[in-house]
Amino acid sequence: MKRRMFQFVNGVFFSKFIYGLIVLNVIAIIFESHKDILRSYNQFFQAFEYFSIVVFSIEYVIRIWIADLDNNTPILFRSKRLGYVCSGYGIIDLIAIVPFYLPLLVAFDLRIVRILRLLRLLRILKLGKYSKSLRIIKNVLKDTKPQLSVTVFVAWILLVLASTLMFYAENDAQPDKFSNIGDSLWWAVATLTTVGYGDVYPVTVTGKLLSAIIALIGIGFVALPTGILSSAFIDNVRKDREKSKPCRCPKCGEEFKTS
Amino acid sequence: MKRRMFQFVNGVFFSKFIYGLIVLNVIAIIFESHKDILRSYNQFFQAFEYFSIVVFSIEYVIRIWIADLDNNTPILFRSKRLGYVCSGYGIIDLIAIVPFYLPLLVAFDLRIVRILRLLRLLRILKLGKYSKSLRIIKNVLKDTKPQLSVTVFVAWILLVLASTLMFYAENDAQPDKFSNIGDSLWWAVATLTTVGYGDVYPVTVTGKLLSAIIALIGIGFVALPTGILSSAFIDNVRKDREKSKPCRCPKCGEEFKTS
Amino acid sequence: MKRRMFQFVNGVFFSKFIYGLIVLNVIAIIFESHKDILRSYNQFFQAFEYFSIVVFSIEYVIRIWIADLDNNTPILFRSKRLGYVCSGYGIIDLIAIVPFYLPLLVAFDLRIVRILRLLRLLRILKLGKYSKSLRIIKNVLKDTKPQLSVTVFVAWILLVLASTLMFYAENDAQPDKFSNIGDSLWWAVATLTTVGYGDVYPVTVTGKLLSAIIALIGIGFVALPTGILSSAFIDNVRKDREKSKPCRCPKCGEEFKTS
Amino acid sequence: MKRRMFQFVNGVFFSKFIYGLIVLNVIAIIFESHKDILRSYNQFFQAFEYFSIVVFSIEYVIRIWIADLDNNTPILFRSKRLGYVCSGYGIIDLIAIVPFYLPLLVAFDLRIVRILRLLRLLRILKLGKYSKSLRIIKNVLKDTKPQLSVTVFVAWILLVLASTLMFYAENDAQPDKFSNIGDSLWWAVATLTTVGYGDVYPVTVTGKLLSAIIALIGIGFVALPTGILSSAFIDNVRKDREKSKPCRCPKCGEEFKTS
Repeated sequence: MKRRMFQFVNGVFFSKFIYGLIVLNVIAIIFESHKDILRSYNQFFQAFEYFSIVVFSIEYVIRIWIADLDNNTPILFRSKRLGYVCSGYGIIDLIAIVPFYLPLLVAFDLRIVRILRLLRLLRILKLGKYSKSLRIIKNVLKDTKPQLSVTVFVAWILLVLASTLMFYAENDAQPDKFSNIGDSLWWAVATLTTVGYGDVYPVTVTGKLLSAIIALIGIGFVALPTGILSSAFIDNVRKDREKSKPCRCPKCGEEFKTS
Repeated sequence: MKRRMFQFVNGVFFSKFIYGLIVLNVIAIIFESHKDILRSYNQFFQAFEYFSIVVFSIEYVIRIWIADLDNNTPILFRSKRLGYVCSGYGIIDLIAIVPFYLPLLVAFDLRIVRILRLLRLLRILKLGKYSKSLRIIKNVLKDTKPQLSVTVFVAWILLVLASTLMFYAENDAQPDKFSNIGDSLWWAVATLTTVGYGDVYPVTVTGKLLSAIIALIGIGFVALPTGILSSAFIDNVRKDREKSKPCRCPKCGEEFKTS
Repeated sequence: MKRRMFQFVNGVFFSKFIYGLIVLNVIAIIFESHKDILRSYNQFFQAFEYFSIVVFSIEYVIRIWIADLDNNTPILFRSKRLGYVCSGYGIIDLIAIVPFYLPLLVAFDLRIVRILRLLRLLRILKLGKYSKSLRIIKNVLKDTKPQLSVTVFVAWILLVLASTLMFYAENDAQPDKFSNIGDSLWWAVATLTTVGYGDVYPVTVTGKLLSAIIALIGIGFVALPTGILSSAFIDNVRKDREKSKPCRCPKCGEEFKTS
Repeated sequence: MKRRMFQFVNGVFFSKFIYGLIVLNVIAIIFESHKDILRSYNQFFQAFEYFSIVVFSIEYVIRIWIADLDNNTPILFRSKRLGYVCSGYGIIDLIAIVPFYLPLLVAFDLRIVRILRLLRLLRILKLGKYSKSLRIIKNVLKDTKPQLSVTVFVAWILLVLASTLMFYAENDAQPDKFSNIGDSLWWAVATLTTVGYGDVYPVTVTGKLLSAIIALIGIGFVALPTGILSSAFIDNVRKDREKSKPCRCPKCGEEFKTS
C-alpha cells in the first residue's frame, strides 16, 4: 500500500492537482487583497484556505511517510525521513503550512500574524518541484556564478559612488529629495536600472552633468548581469542540442560529433 | 483561365497591390481616429472602406476558387477549398472582411459594431503572407519555446511575489495607489519592465528598500526573454550561413553539407 | 606640387586639424544656442564661422583639384573630379559649406535661413571620413540587414496594434491624452522603448491590463534590433581576430587555422 | 622580521581585515550623510575615522618598506619602493589617507575640505586589490576597446544630433525646458538611455514625431556598449574553458593547448 501511495503521489494526476491548487492559492491571495471582494466572499476564502491547508498538511505527512522509498532523498542521521524534512523541498513544504498552525499554538501580535499570512505566498515556490524551470535556472546561476559575482560587485560600487557624488551635487538645491546618501541611493537605483520614475531627478547643472555621465557609463555595468544570464541560458540549451545530434557522413555512414 | 488567374493572384504585381492596400487601410484607421479629419473627409474614408472590402472580398472568393490548384493548401474532408477556408491564412482573410458584412445581416448594438470595426486592424496580419517575416519569427519562437516558457514562468512568479510584498509594504502609506495586489501588479510591471511611468512609486523607507532590491534582481529575469529571442534570431541566420559551409568526415575525407 | 598637396591633405596633420575644427564647430553650435553666450560672444562666433567656412571651402576646392590622383575615387562620365563631387564624401563636404553661401546668392525667408544654419551640424558626418567607425557600422548594418528589416517590421506592426487597442481602451477615460491613434502611438513608443516619461499612461483597469500585456510581450520585440546589432558587432570583430591568428603546432611547427 | 611582515601583509587574515575596514568606511560615509545620525553619533564617527586613518597609514608605510621583497612591484629609478609609490595601487593607497592630512598642513577653504572628505570614498577602489574583479573588468575593457570606442563615438554623435534637432523643434513651445542645446542634451540622455524621468518631454507634434524616431533608432546604438561588454564578459570565461580543452594538429596528430 505504501508503494502504491508512493506511485500515486509522484504520478502525473497528483502533481497536476497540487500544481493547480498552488496557482489557485496565489490567485486567492491576490483577490483577498481587494477589500470589497474580501468582505463579500470572506467565507469562501476561509473555506478555501482550510481546504488548502488540509491538502498540503496531508501531502506533507505522506511525503515524510514515503520518504524512505525514494532513492533521491538525502540521508541524514541514517534516516531518509529526516533527510526529506531538512531538504530544500521539505522546508518549502513545511513553510507552506506552518503560518496557519503557529497562531493556533502561540498567542501572537496581530501584526506578526499579518506577516505570517504573507508567508503563504511562498507556496508558489512549491511549483519549482513540479517543473524543470528551477533546475535549469539553478544550473545557469551555478555556471555564471563567477561572472555574476564580479558584475554585481561592480554594480554595487557604482551605485554607492553615484549616490555619494549626487548627494554632494544636489543636497543644497533639493535638501528634501537628496537629504542623505540613502535617499540618493534610491535615485541611483531608479536611474541605473533605467526605471526612472521621475520622483527624484537632478535640477542643478552640476547634478545633471554628473547624472548624464553616470547614466551613460553606469547603465552598461548594471545591465551586465542580465546580459550574462541570458547568454548562459542560450549556451545551456545549445550544449544540450549539440550533445544529442551526431553528424552522419553520407558516403561511409560513419557517425561522429562535430566540434 | 483558372490557371492564368492562379498565376496572376500569386504573382508579384497582385501581391504588391494587396500589400499596399493593407498598409493604406492601416493608415486610414489611424487617421480616422482623429475626429476633425474624420468629419472633414468622412465620405472619402467610407469610399475607401467600400473599395477595400470589394477588393478583399473578390480576393477571398478567387482564393477559394483556385485553392485546388495550389499544392501547399492543406486537404480537409477531401477538399482543398475547405482546407484553405480553415487554414490560418484563410481565417485571416475572412476576418479582414467579415466585420463589414455582419452588421448588415444582424442588428447589432452600436458598441459591438465599434469593436467589430477594430477587427479591421487585423488586416495587418495579411502582411505576414507576403513577407518572410512571420515565417522567421515562427521558427525563432519554436526554437526557443522551452527557454521562453521557463523564463516567462519565472517572470510571472517574480511579478506576483514583488507585487504582494510591495502591497504589504506600501498599502498603509498609499492606500489609494497600492489599494490591492492588482494595483500593486501594475507597479510591478512598470518597474520590472523599466518603463517607470512615475504614476505609482514607493514612498516609505521599507517600500523603497524592497523596491530597489526587487528592481536590481528582477529586471534581469524579466529581460531574459528579450535576450533569448535576440540570440535565437542571430543563431537562426548563422545556421543558414554554416549550411553553405561544407563539413568534412574525419574517416573518409568526404565533404558534405550538414542539414 | 599637386602630388605634394595630395600627400599633405591625406596626411596625419591635416586630418587631425580638420577633425579638431569639426569638433570645435559642433561645440560652437551647442554654445551658440545659449542666448546669453551668443549675445556676449557674437563677434567671436561669427569670426569662427567665417574661419571654418574658409577652411572647409579651400579643402573642398583642393579635394576636387587632386581627386584625379586618388585611386579610390569613383569615375563618373570619365572624370574622377565629377566622381568625387557626386560621391558620398563629396556631397557631405558640399553640404558642410553650402548653407553659408546660399543666403548670399538668393534672398531667403528668415525661417529657411534658420533651418539652413542647422545643416551646419551635418559637418559632424565629415568625422566618419577620418575614423574607421562609419565603415565598421556600415558593415554591421549590411550583415544584419535581413534580420533588422524583419524585426523593424514586426516592431512597427506591434506599435500600430498596441496604439490602436489602447486608443479604444482609454479614449473615453482620457479624451485629451488618447484623443486619436497618433497620440496613442506616442504612448506606445514611450512604453515599448521603456522610456516611460510619465506624461501619458493608462488609468482604466482595461487600459492597465492591456498595457501590462503589451509591455511584457512587446518590449522583447522592440528591443530585438538592439540585441541583433550588438551581436553582429561582436561577431564582426571575432571574425577579424580569428583570421589573423593562425595556430602553430608546438611539435612539427605546422601553422594551421582552427575552425 | 621584514620577511615575516611581508607574509603577514599579503596573507589572508590581513587582507580580510583591510577589506572589512574599507566596507565599514563606505557604510560610515553613507550614515554620516544623515544629519540626525551624524549629530547623535558624531564622536563615534570621528573615532572610527581616526582609527581607519591610523590603520591605512601604517599599512601604507609598511607597504613602502616591504616593496623591495615583492617581485611584482615595478622598478622606477632603480628603486622598487619608488615603483610601488608611483604604481596604481600605491597612488590609491595614498589617496585613501591624504585627504585627512592635507587640512592639517595647509589652511583650506571649508568647501575644499568638504570635497577632500569626498575623496575618502575612493578607498572603495582599494577593494580591487583584494578581489579578482577589477582584473577581469580590465581585461574585458582592453579586449573590447576598439568596438567600445566606435560605439561610444556613435552614441555621442547621436546625442548631439538628437539634442540639436529637438532644440529647434521644441524651443518655441517650451522655452524654459529646451532653452538651449545643453538643456536639450539632458533630454537626449534621459531618452536614449531609456531612463525617462519625465521632467522634460516634447509637447509639439513635430517634437513628438522626431523624438519617437530618435528613440526607436537611437536606443539601439546607445545600448550597444552594454551588449558588447556583456558579450566580452562571457567570451572571457569561454576562452578560459577552451584553454583546458586540447587542440589537435591536423598534420602530426599531436595534442597541445592553445594559448
